[in-house]
Amino acid sequence: MSGKESAERAGAGREAVIGALAQRYHNRFSTGQAIREQHGHTASWHKNQPPDGVFFAETTEEVSEVVKLCAANDVPVIPFGVGSSLEGHVNAPMGGISIDLGRMDRLIEVNEGDLDCRVEAGMTRKKLNEQLRDTGLFFPIDPGADASIGGMAATRASGTNAVRYGTMRDNVLGLTVVTADGRIIRTGSRARKSSAGYDLTRLMVGSEGTLGIMTEIALKLSGIPEAISGGVCPFPDVRSACDAVILTIQCGIPVARIELMDEVQVAACNAYSKLDLPVTPLLFLEFHGTEASVREQSELFSGIATDCGGGEFRWEVEPEKRNKLWQARHDAYWAAVQMRPGTQGLATDVCVPISNLAECVASTRAEIDRLGIPAPIVGHVGDGNFHVLAQVDTNDPTEVEKAEKFLAWLVDLALSMDGTCTGEHGIGQGKMKYMKAEHGEGLDLMRSIKDALDPQGILNPGKVLPA
Amino acid sequence: MSGKESAERAGAGREAVIGALAQRYHNRFSTGQAIREQHGHTASWHKNQPPDGVFFAETTEEVSEVVKLCAANDVPVIPFGVGSSLEGHVNAPMGGISIDLGRMDRLIEVNEGDLDCRVEAGMTRKKLNEQLRDTGLFFPIDPGADASIGGMAATRASGTNAVRYGTMRDNVLGLTVVTADGRIIRTGSRARKSSAGYDLTRLMVGSEGTLGIMTEIALKLSGIPEAISGGVCPFPDVRSACDAVILTIQCGIPVARIELMDEVQVAACNAYSKLDLPVTPLLFLEFHGTEASVREQSELFSGIATDCGGGEFRWEVEPEKRNKLWQARHDAYWAAVQMRPGTQGLATDVCVPISNLAECVASTRAEIDRLGIPAPIVGHVGDGNFHVLAQVDTNDPTEVEKAEKFLAWLVDLALSMDGTCTGEHGIGQGKMKYMKAEHGEGLDLMRSIKDALDPQGILNPGKVLPA
Repeated sequence: MSGKESAERAGAGREAVIGALAQRYHNRFSTGQAIREQHGHTASWHKNQPPDGVFFAETTEEVSEVVKLCAANDVPVIPFGVGSSLEGHVNAPMGGISIDLGRMDRLIEVNEGDLDCRVEAGMTRKKLNEQLRDTGLFFPIDPGADASIGGMAATRASGTNAVRYGTMRDNVLGLTVVTADGRIIRTGSRARKSSAGYDLTRLMVGSEGTLGIMTEIALKLSGIPEAISGGVCPFPDVRSACDAVILTIQCGIPVARIELMDEVQVAACNAYSKLDLPVTPLLFLEFHGTEASVREQSELFSGIATDCGGGEFRWEVEPEKRNKLWQARHDAYWAAVQMRPGTQGLATDVCVPISNLAECVASTRAEIDRLGIPAPIVGHVGDGNFHVLAQVDTNDPTEVEKAEKFLAWLVDLALSMDGTCTGEHGIGQGKMKYMKAEHGEGLDLMRSIKDALDPQGILNPGKVLPA
Repeated sequence: MSGKESAERAGAGREAVIGALAQRYHNRFSTGQAIREQHGHTASWHKNQPPDGVFFAETTEEVSEVVKLCAANDVPVIPFGVGSSLEGHVNAPMGGISIDLGRMDRLIEVNEGDLDCRVEAGMTRKKLNEQLRDTGLFFPIDPGADASIGGMAATRASGTNAVRYGTMRDNVLGLTVVTADGRIIRTGSRARKSSAGYDLTRLMVGSEGTLGIMTEIALKLSGIPEAISGGVCPFPDVRSACDAVILTIQCGIPVARIELMDEVQVAACNAYSKLDLPVTPLLFLEFHGTEASVREQSELFSGIATDCGGGEFRWEVEPEKRNKLWQARHDAYWAAVQMRPGTQGLATDVCVPISNLAECVASTRAEIDRLGIPAPIVGHVGDGNFHVLAQVDTNDPTEVEKAEKFLAWLVDLALSMDGTCTGEHGIGQGKMKYMKAEHGEGLDLMRSIKDALDPQGILNPGKVLPA
C-alpha cells in the first residue's frame, strides 16, 4: 500500500468509527471541539493533541464494543480518567477515540473483613474515601490531585504516604481489563497473595493504557489509624535532612509520610499559605498508629533529627494545626506557580536510592539556580523521589530550550545514581526519549510484549515506548 | 517435517549440545545418572524427570552462552537452585540441560543506607542472612526451606512473615535476566519506586524460569527490630481464631507473623517436638518493634483474642523459649510426616480472602477426615494462605486417586471463594491443570507473552502454562 492509500484507508476507518458511534450512542459520543480539546488536556506543558471523538462509557461491555469497532477499523483508542496526568498520557498524537471512563465511578463492593474493595475505573480517590467513611477503612494512596483510580493504576501512581502504604503497584489486587481485540479479562483475585502464573495485574499497572484498558480495579484498603500525629522539623541543609530520613527508615520507625521541602519551596509556601516557617530545608512528618505508638515514633524521630543537626521538631497532634501544615505541603504546586505568574508549571520527577538523594537534590538546586529558572523542590524523601516545579515562560524559546536541557540533565543524573527517570509521574510522551537509557535491551522485551498484546498498535499509541 | 524427522532433529541437537558442553566445561558439566536425577528432584510426590545433562554455572555470561547454544539446537533449559520447590518446577519432562546456579552464590553488594543488596541467584536465604549479620539488616522472607533467592523469586515465594514484610513480589527491586535468545538484560533499578514503563521485574518474579533465567537479584532489606516478642494462643475452633486474625489486621496491629495450626497439627507437633501444647487450634504470633511497641501489640492482641473466645495468650520474650515454640512451627512438616511413616508427604497450598478462611479450613478438615488421609493443616493465616500436609501411601493407587481428587476439590473450593489455587508454592507441573479455571481468558494473554519472549519454547517447558 502506498503512503497515500494507507492514509486514505486510515481516514476511511476513522469516518466509519465516528459514524457508528454517533448513531449508536447519540449524546454519549462527541466530536465537538471543546470536548475533544479537553480530552487532549494535560496538566503540564505538553502540546494539546485532541482525539477525533470522545465516547463516554458506562459499562465494561461498552468499552469492549468500542474497542472492537476501533480494532476493526485500525483506529487508536485512548483511555481517559480525569486528565490530571503530567506527561501527555491522554493526548491523541495519532487521533482516534478517547474513551472517557468518568461515568464509570461506582463503588462495586467493599469487603470490610478482608480490607478490600472493587471500584470502576472512573472513581476518584477522594470520592472513594468519602464512600468508605463509615467502614473505618480508607484508601491510602494520595498523589495530590483527585485522580481517578484507573488513571492512578495506569500510571503506577503513589504520593506522600507511599513510604508506609506502598504505591499502586502494591495496592491493586486485581483488574478487569479490555484487551486490544476487545476481550474482557480478569486478573488477580481477592487473595492477598498468589503464585499462580504470570503477574498480569502488575504488568497492566503502569502500562498507561498501552496494553489494555482497565475498567474495574480491586484495591487493598487500610484501617483508619487510631491516632495520627505529625510535625515539621528544620535542617541546616538538605544533606542533614536526608541523613535523618535514612536513619528513621533504618530504625524501622513506621513513618506514614516524610516529606522534604527545600528553602525555595518554603519561601514560596510562606508567601502563598501565610505561614512563618523557617526558610531552610524542612521535613514534614506524619505518624499513624495507637496514641502510645505515635508518641513513641515522634520521640524517636526527634532524637534522630537532633543527632543529624536538625532543629526542634514541632509536633502537632491537633488535627486543625496539623491540617494547616499539610495544606501548605499540598499547596506546594500552587505556591510555586505563584512565584512567577503567567508562566507554565513544569512538574517533573525522578527517584534515586535514598543514600544518593542529598547529592542529587543539591546538584539539582545548583543547576536550576545556574539556569535562572524559579524552581522549588519537594520530595517524597522516604522513597528517594523528588519533584522539581519549574516555572517556565513557554513563550520564550530560549527558556524552553533551557528547560528541556535541564530535564535531560536531571534524568542523566538520576540514572547515573542507580535511579529512575520517573518515580511516579509515568512516561507518557514526555519521557519516552529516556526509556532506552534507563532500560537498555529491556526496552526490546517491552516492545515484544506490546506487539504480542496489541499487534495493531491501537492502544494509546505514541506513549511509553519510543518509535 | 514428519514426527520421526522432528524427533531425529531434536536428538541430534541434544547430542550437539552435550558434546559442546562436555568439551568446553569438563567437570562443570555432567551427564551422570545420580546428578541428573538429583536435578530432576522435587520435594514432593511429582515423578522424577531428569534432564539430559547438568551444567554448573559460575557467571551470568556462561548462562547466556549455554542458553545461546541450547537455543541454536532447540534444546530445553531448566534453571535449578537448590531443588526445594514443591510442584515439579525443576523436572525435565522434555529433557534438556539443567543450569545449576548453586555456585553463583555471592553477595555482590550491600547498600546499608538504602536497605538493599544484590546477590547472585544461587545464594540461599540463610547464607544471605549470615552474611548480613554485622549490618543490622536482614532479609525477611522465610519460606521454611533454605531455598535459593533465585528460586524464591522464580516461584514468588513468601512464608511466615509475609503479613508484615510482603512476598518476593514486594521485595525484589531488580533483576539480571538471561533471555531465551541468550541476551543479558537488567530490570528495575535501586530506586524504591518507578513509573518508567512495563514492570518487567514483576513479570519475571513468579514466572518459574519460563520467561528468562534470573542470575542476579537486587533485594530490599529490613532493619533487625530492636525487640521481638511472640507467643501462642489457643482457640476453641478455627473460626474464632480466624476472627481474631481479621480484627488484628483491621486494627492495624503490625504483626510480623500470625500462624494457625489446627488440632491435628498440634497433636503431631506435641509428639514430634516433645511439647505439651493444648490440642486445639492455636495461633502462633510474633511482634517486631521497639520494646514498648511489642508490649503494646501483644496487649492489644491479647484483648482481641479474649473478645473472640480465645484462651490465655502465652507471651514469650525470652529468645530461648520463643525459639522452641517457633521451632515446633517450623518442624510442622516433619511432625506431619512422622504421623504415618513410610508414606509420601503431599504439601499443597491455596489462598483465600481472610473472611473466607475459617469456612475454607473447616470444609477442608471435614473433607480430609472423610477421605481418611492423615493431613494436618497449617496456615499463614494473616494472608489467608494455608497448607495441607497430606500423608499419602503412593504405593496404593486408590489412595493416590483419592488424594488427586482431594487436590482438585480444594482448588475448586478456593476459587469459589475468590481465592487462588496456590498462595506461594507456584504452578510448576502440579497445578497447570487449574490455570484455566483460575485465569480464564487471562491464560491466553500469558500464552501470548510466553510466545513473544520465548518463541522456541525452550525455557523450562512443560511448566506453568498447560499445553
